[in-house]
Amino acid sequence: MRVKYRKGAPEHLQENTHIVVENPVDFKGRWAERFGNNHPIHIEVGCGKGGFITGMAAQHPEINYIAIDMQLSVLSYALDKALEANLPNVQMMLVDGAALTEYFEDGEVAQIYLNFSDPWPKNRHEKRRLTYKSFLATYERILPSGGEVHFKTDNRGLFEYSLVSLTNYGMTLKQVWLDLHADEEFSQVNVMTEYEEKFSSKGQVIYRLEAKFQEK
Amino acid sequence: MRVKYRKGAPEHLQENTHIVVENPVDFKGRWAERFGNNHPIHIEVGCGKGGFITGMAAQHPEINYIAIDMQLSVLSYALDKALEANLPNVQMMLVDGAALTEYFEDGEVAQIYLNFSDPWPKNRHEKRRLTYKSFLATYERILPSGGEVHFKTDNRGLFEYSLVSLTNYGMTLKQVWLDLHADEEFSQVNVMTEYEEKFSSKGQVIYRLEAKFQEK
Ligand SMILES: C[S@@+](CC[C@H](N)C(=O)[O-])C[C@H]1O[C@@H](n2cnc3c(N)ncnc32)[C@H](O)[C@@H]1O
Ligand SMILES: C[S@@+](CC[C@H](N)C(=O)[O-])C[C@H]1O[C@@H](n2cnc3c(N)ncnc32)[C@H](O)[C@@H]1O
Repeated sequence: MRVKYRKGAPEHLQENTHIVVENPVDFKGRWAERFGNNHPIHIEVGCGKGGFITGMAAQHPEINYIAIDMQLSVLSYALDKALEANLPNVQMMLVDGAALTEYFEDGEVAQIYLNFSDPWPKNRHEKRRLTYKSFLATYERILPSGGEVHFKTDNRGLFEYSLVSLTNYGMTLKQVWLDLHADEEFSQVNVMTEYEEKFSSKGQVIYRLEAKFQEK
Repeated sequence: MRVKYRKGAPEHLQENTHIVVENPVDFKGRWAERFGNNHPIHIEVGCGKGGFITGMAAQHPEINYIAIDMQLSVLSYALDKALEANLPNVQMMLVDGAALTEYFEDGEVAQIYLNFSDPWPKNRHEKRRLTYKSFLATYERILPSGGEVHFKTDNRGLFEYSLVSLTNYGMTLKQVWLDLHADEEFSQVNVMTEYEEKFSSKGQVIYRLEAKFQEK
């Protein structure tokens, strides 16, 4: 997803450093201090406009959420939603998901969400996919042993690729949905992302998986 | 699948013991003798009316195929196709897939196909699904180290279940198709089963996976 430059976005982020973490490296190993409690930390890599994280944070006050995106204008829209929701358990970072070990100590993150990640369909762009093995190695480090990645997308090719990539990394699948919205029980708690609203309203099937790293 | 009793089916099988193996236990460890060559042996568990195995055998004369079903009337239809095709590399057995280690020595089977296996959607019937862990343990024994299972189905619930079951058994996914017939390259070599013809003509998506057991 490429979003048009939003005027005033840099200033908008700088004026709200209580939500958008200015120097995230400073909090490596100290996120509990930042949140002021020891609740588990769940992160979303590639949060886009932030509807998911804000919705999840409202639904789960006992969890701390960190929304991550590397596009400034995109994150500024996510910030709007967080400001409006005014929740104590949402933080944001403008960083690259490839560098998560710079910002989190080993095992500091309890769970990782990937939603409608950019598909990068060309083979030569495989390394940019958020389910490529180098990303998985990064996630594994910042998660506890047996930690989980929850991923949803409408993109068939990316989902097929991810099933192969995750299991070849040694992850096991806890659950898989090949038509998420057909699951009435899950739909009651499902927080839709902006992309999910858009693609499901066009009649696209939504895929989802929960995968676990090996217990060490 | 429950098929109506076919009159004369037992006699039909008994008259064609050059194709329908009468005492398959006798060939455990000696299938090469039965086929008269050392070609790799591929089996289909739950072959139904046999269109797949006959089609594959015609396409791959360098492979020996054994079609397995436990319903007598069903297998008698598969026999009709084999008789008509008149191929030296097709054999059949009327046995339960749960007992494959009775008929094959460890590592004697090069590859296993499961096509449109009965879904057994009720939780209490989980153990009957051909991708339940006890079946996987059986397949693992008769396959070589790192052996493969190739599975296709139109049934979403069974496919979701199988992805979870296989990966929890320690298998990795080599490739996954969430809309097999959309793959034009694969479609050129794909041999459709009777169920595949039926469900895809109704517009159902066909799922497929190739999974590998751990290398020992
Ligand atoms: C297709 S959008 C989906 C946004 C949102 N998750 C949704 O479902 O509506 C993908 C987002 O991932 C972000 N992204 C892609 N690669 C990233 C990376 N390596 N690190 C952080 N964000 C990334 C992009 O900037 C984009 O905003
Ligand atoms: C739904 S049919 C599919 C037939 C065929 N593979 C196709 O795709 O057209 C499933 C078949 O599996 C057979 N089957 C089910 N469980 C079996 C088992 N444990 N051992 C052998 N065959 C089995 C049934 O008798 C039935 O013929």
